[in-house]
Amino acid sequence: MTRLSPQDAAAQLARVRLERPLVHHITNLVTMNDVANTTIALGASPVMAHAREEVEEMAAQAAALVLNIGTLTAEAVDAMVLAGRAANARGVPVILDPVGAGATRFRSAQSRRILAEVRCRCVRGNAGEVAALAGRAGTVRGVDALGAPREIEALARGLAEQTGAVVAATGVEDVVTDGAATVRIANGHPLLARITGSGCMATAAVAAFAAVEPDALAAAVAGLVCFEVAAEDAAERASGPGTFRAALMDALAALDGPAVVRRARMTVE
Amino acid sequence: MTRLSPQDAAAQLARVRLERPLVHHITNLVTMNDVANTTIALGASPVMAHAREEVEEMAAQAAALVLNIGTLTAEAVDAMVLAGRAANARGVPVILDPVGAGATRFRSAQSRRILAEVRCRCVRGNAGEVAALAGRAGTVRGVDALGAPREIEALARGLAEQTGAVVAATGVEDVVTDGAATVRIANGHPLLARITGSGCMATAAVAAFAAVEPDALAAAVAGLVCFEVAAEDAAERASGPGTFRAALMDALAALDGPAVVRRARMTVE
Amino acid sequence: MTRLSPQDAAAQLARVRLERPLVHHITNLVTMNDVANTTIALGASPVMAHAREEVEEMAAQAAALVLNIGTLTAEAVDAMVLAGRAANARGVPVILDPVGAGATRFRSAQSRRILAEVRCRCVRGNAGEVAALAGRAGTVRGVDALGAPREIEALARGLAEQTGAVVAATGVEDVVTDGAATVRIANGHPLLARITGSGCMATAAVAAFAAVEPDALAAAVAGLVCFEVAAEDAAERASGPGTFRAALMDALAALDGPAVVRRARMTVE
Repeated sequence: MTRLSPQDAAAQLARVRLERPLVHHITNLVTMNDVANTTIALGASPVMAHAREEVEEMAAQAAALVLNIGTLTAEAVDAMVLAGRAANARGVPVILDPVGAGATRFRSAQSRRILAEVRCRCVRGNAGEVAALAGRAGTVRGVDALGAPREIEALARGLAEQTGAVVAATGVEDVVTDGAATVRIANGHPLLARITGSGCMATAAVAAFAAVEPDALAAAVAGLVCFEVAAEDAAERASGPGTFRAALMDALAALDGPAVVRRARMTVE
Repeated sequence: MTRLSPQDAAAQLARVRLERPLVHHITNLVTMNDVANTTIALGASPVMAHAREEVEEMAAQAAALVLNIGTLTAEAVDAMVLAGRAANARGVPVILDPVGAGATRFRSAQSRRILAEVRCRCVRGNAGEVAALAGRAGTVRGVDALGAPREIEALARGLAEQTGAVVAATGVEDVVTDGAATVRIANGHPLLARITGSGCMATAAVAAFAAVEPDALAAAVAGLVCFEVAAEDAAERASGPGTFRAALMDALAALDGPAVVRRARMTVE
Repeated sequence: MTRLSPQDAAAQLARVRLERPLVHHITNLVTMNDVANTTIALGASPVMAHAREEVEEMAAQAAALVLNIGTLTAEAVDAMVLAGRAANARGVPVILDPVGAGATRFRSAQSRRILAEVRCRCVRGNAGEVAALAGRAGTVRGVDALGAPREIEALARGLAEQTGAVVAATGVEDVVTDGAATVRIANGHPLLARITGSGCMATAAVAAFAAVEPDALAAAVAGLVCFEVAAEDAAERASGPGTFRAALMDALAALDGPAVVRRARMTVE
């Protein structure tokens, strides 16, 4: 079993379920229920807390911290920075989801502020968000990018080099890179684009794996592969986006390692 | 095909799916996930953003703006007014959902404040909320009205005349009026009253249609007809309110124009 | 039919459905949709409102008030105290859910503040939260306790004596006590621990029953028994946590009194 392999993803999944790591989320109001349920379904334990009086204490005892700016305010970002620094001080991995970066100046600026003040282990976004943070004006419609540009890999590598974070740009095909190695993942299902929160849930999966796996690139790849294989299972049982959303939680909870090994579609460059 | 016809509703649905308009929601915390998923299921693209630093920029690039006061605070209403004025300046239609107007003085006052400071294209509420805004003390229990009073049409017309907005008072039978023409819609299903958020989702449907259709009365009618026909489909597959909620998203995504034309129960007065 | 019996629980359920009491929730952002839908499914009418300008007016017209600190801020607790005092002044029962008490100093302190400033009819928490409020450092992982300690009954009794509230410590077996009588409830299903919000929903059930039943111990027992019998029904139809969550709302709405009488597993000490 080598690093960045389907076998390693399955082994990480087993560790998430064994260790039940606590994952602290400061996240958006639209999808936080789905994010919490995703975290539980994968085997980890979520806690949502955003009051500035408690975020440092909570982050310090967590095994991973998620910062998701989907419904940000200036005050929420203040709390994110406090929590992020506390996490940094303890070596707790921080995962950033820069939802809607590029859609408004405020979102772009606050995303950059977090990246400047907090050392992030991983940034998980769509193509438009990664492009915006890499300094390229992306076309963002709402919080969904309309398709990965050709240059997404170059942008992701550039952002990884700028920030020191692994960058995971998800879409029809995901690009995950630490600036040196790049992994492409072709799992997933079109129904993911038909519900709100699939990006946030993918970020939650990455965080659950980063909570047990210190290699940020390996954790991001494993989290995305497991999440997307489960999405394929869910799509088989779904009659549309509503039943897909429920089936996705069932599939995440039922996901087994051999299925991940058999069905992962990842290529390492 | 004439205006205010089932055929026109079906044609608008096709345009929502083709144009995928961006709909900006400043909405309540209880139902925002359902609202976002409703918007996607109908074919539009939702974005939720409420920070005062970004609402004007977001509203200005949207094709419609929803202001829903379900879990309002004074700060949230400040942001709604900022966004609403930016929308007005750009000709972006604004849809108001005055959740719970009449239940507390604060809700009634803030609803009136929005109507005074923002030009709304449509107000979608239940009978009690419309009555409260029309200056009649309504009986509101929680955020659900207990049944449309006989005089609801007169109240809706009065509110439409006062505000210049199309008023959609939904219930067992919906009354939609611009003060001159009135349309009654008899679609829907009792399970809509057994879940939270069905009113908010109906408002989201109206907004998705207003984003592609400049005639506010036609958009409100089409949005409600399509939403309620989908609710009828969902009820056939549901075993209760929980499975209904999931089935509703499936049905909205699967809704086809011929079914709308065949099953719309609307009368124009 | 005696108090603290399955028959009494069934009779209370019938009263909830007949009276449709208004339940005011100041609750957490993660699970508020589930909490609202639970309240409706049981037959009561929820309203969520947290603005300090309106919480007193709303609480005063409600039949029960829920204070849930799952995603607390200092401002939210200020509103909770205002609402709680208004409820106290009117004799409206207040139900506290001290989510995550013991996890951070802030949560413990704010829980104690609410208990000091508001007379609570019932406190519903897990073992760790009850232990923390009873002055014993509990082991809390996220907001889920890992299993009821042996001493949970003593802690619950102690907290009931300190506060004058009925204390309901839920887990594999629930302990509900007013400091004198204690009731143990063995209903429920392991899938409840596989979704977020099952504790919050149990609290909502207790509140819906407290809204119609002045005997706080009887209301807490009835609310938990009904909720947990419905969870057993839901588990039979579920394929995992996602479909369980939808099935739970169906089961709550379909729950009938004879099933509660037949299947309640409660012992009075």
